[in-house]
Amino acid sequence: MTQVGVNGYGTIGKRVADAVAAQPDMELVGVAKTRPNFEAETAARKDYPLYAAVPERADRFAADGFDLAGEVDELVAAADVVVDCTPSGIGAENASMYEAHDTPAIFQGGEDADVADVSFNARANYADAVGADSARVVSCNTTGLSRILAPLSETFGVEKARVTLVRRGGDPGQTGRGPIDDILPDPVTVPSHHGPDVNTIFPDLDIDTLGMKVPATLMHTHSVNVTLASDADAADVLDLFADEDRLFLIPPGADIDGAGKLKEFAHDAGRPRGDLWENCIWAESVTVEGRDCYLFQAIHQESDVVPENVDAIRALRGDDDAAESMATTEAAMGVGIDY
Amino acid sequence: MTQVGVNGYGTIGKRVADAVAAQPDMELVGVAKTRPNFEAETAARKDYPLYAAVPERADRFAADGFDLAGEVDELVAAADVVVDCTPSGIGAENASMYEAHDTPAIFQGGEDADVADVSFNARANYADAVGADSARVVSCNTTGLSRILAPLSETFGVEKARVTLVRRGGDPGQTGRGPIDDILPDPVTVPSHHGPDVNTIFPDLDIDTLGMKVPATLMHTHSVNVTLASDADAADVLDLFADEDRLFLIPPGADIDGAGKLKEFAHDAGRPRGDLWENCIWAESVTVEGRDCYLFQAIHQESDVVPENVDAIRALRGDDDAAESMATTEAAMGVGIDY
Repeated sequence: MTQVGVNGYGTIGKRVADAVAAQPDMELVGVAKTRPNFEAETAARKDYPLYAAVPERADRFAADGFDLAGEVDELVAAADVVVDCTPSGIGAENASMYEAHDTPAIFQGGEDADVADVSFNARANYADAVGADSARVVSCNTTGLSRILAPLSETFGVEKARVTLVRRGGDPGQTGRGPIDDILPDPVTVPSHHGPDVNTIFPDLDIDTLGMKVPATLMHTHSVNVTLASDADAADVLDLFADEDRLFLIPPGADIDGAGKLKEFAHDAGRPRGDLWENCIWAESVTVEGRDCYLFQAIHQESDVVPENVDAIRALRGDDDAAESMATTEAAMGVGIDY
Repeated sequence: MTQVGVNGYGTIGKRVADAVAAQPDMELVGVAKTRPNFEAETAARKDYPLYAAVPERADRFAADGFDLAGEVDELVAAADVVVDCTPSGIGAENASMYEAHDTPAIFQGGEDADVADVSFNARANYADAVGADSARVVSCNTTGLSRILAPLSETFGVEKARVTLVRRGGDPGQTGRGPIDDILPDPVTVPSHHGPDVNTIFPDLDIDTLGMKVPATLMHTHSVNVTLASDADAADVLDLFADEDRLFLIPPGADIDGAGKLKEFAHDAGRPRGDLWENCIWAESVTVEGRDCYLFQAIHQESDVVPENVDAIRALRGDDDAAESMATTEAAMGVGIDY
């Protein structure tokens, strides 16, 4: 059993902890948090051992009635692998602690690519991370793009990809974020960081990305154009995608017009927190004009990277069977929508 | 002096009426309305003769204290040209009335293309409408695309255009519209109607468009990709656009990040209703990668077609000097932003 520590128990960390706890070959050693907020209460209710991420603030937990199992370096020492789910930039600061304990570490996509030996997407480049000391699971948007670009490039070849990412302004809980009633080019310059980030997974892919930000909180939505290197029609693309467990093809007739209904569907299905780990691709949108393939997909920014983190743990531990890892992750979590 | 009647005095009609009244070679005969609402009050305050668009409802105006100049067919009879600014679909119903009076008519982009002899954009195909019996001014989005595609295709050639239109859900006054907190593919199928509509102006242009709808009211925003037929760099494209009065290049450093600040700027400048008749293109976004040109532009859905309607009036009257018409329109309205 691989002993896994999760440093950072916020939006991503709490989901990764649950996913790890559900795996047949992993045990959750504990989770580290900076503040005794409602998410600390969530960890306590789940009986997850709670560690202080910032030793100087440890007494705040006691003051609020939380029992600490220790401080974060004890968690790192006890773990076979640590998953860093701290806010962007903090992961890089933590890297030396993981190295000092010789604990393989997984970072999130908010960190620069050089934080880790390899950037990681299970479907696209699992093998690159096998036995590495560290891996960076790319961001939600890059994960979403990698999952479609991998099968498209393997099967048809990709001449060029052009993607407009219409991003939610903030998560539902990020009440300080905007915009309200506006559509912002963000960044106003081209390309957005997403294209170069995709190139950390597909170094030779020709891709240009444009980013925007709008008054929505539930999911990102991508307007995707992929110029294929060989002829295909929409049915070929749909057939290809139907074989991918981490792609959900929204059926015509489902009356799912946006992220709100997708989340309703996920809640109806009993998904924890209404999570959608899969790319949600509108089947009706998949279109090929000449060799230009188009589609719309919605990406759940809070959860799509969670199965990737689980697979990255196995890769760092030297497990070299990507397909088996992905299948194990999916079975334990319930990833994959059969509609 | 060309006598102009405006049938429909809502979002577009009230702006067209003001623009016509400002022209040195036109007189506004009057405006027709269906209901005595706040916009009827606006017409009365401006001393625009008010006609009943629906004769059966004429007495409602008297009941609310408005003096009517007559009924809509009298307005059509008195006019040399009528501009139909009624809601989508009503224009087509009105066409037989304009024909019966032998009054040349201009329709809006919400009508099907076959409502008129020709679809019209002043910059792209003014000559096609000279002396025609009717013209359809294409929609705000198609107008915005035509204004950039015309100079690009003339100067560099266009191999293909791919555009994602991130559309406002409704105008500020359309309080019944959505979405709230969502990003909707709209339509979910590809292409949206915009591509075929652009082909009514540029019949041979290869263009694919994708439409989305978001919780914003102020302006549409386009993520534009144009694969040029010859080499150019961003500076060449910016130079080309700088010569176009109906394109506003938002300067870097202006701190204009979205539609909200664009409207603030328009109000600061004393623009009527804060209107932005020009495409608002972020200069920083204009990028060329290989022969792929990218840019972001914001389009003010309530006003960008107004100068086009004025030019269409002159074209139908047989005035064949497009450049002079456009310059006259712009000088009278104050179109063109020198920043």
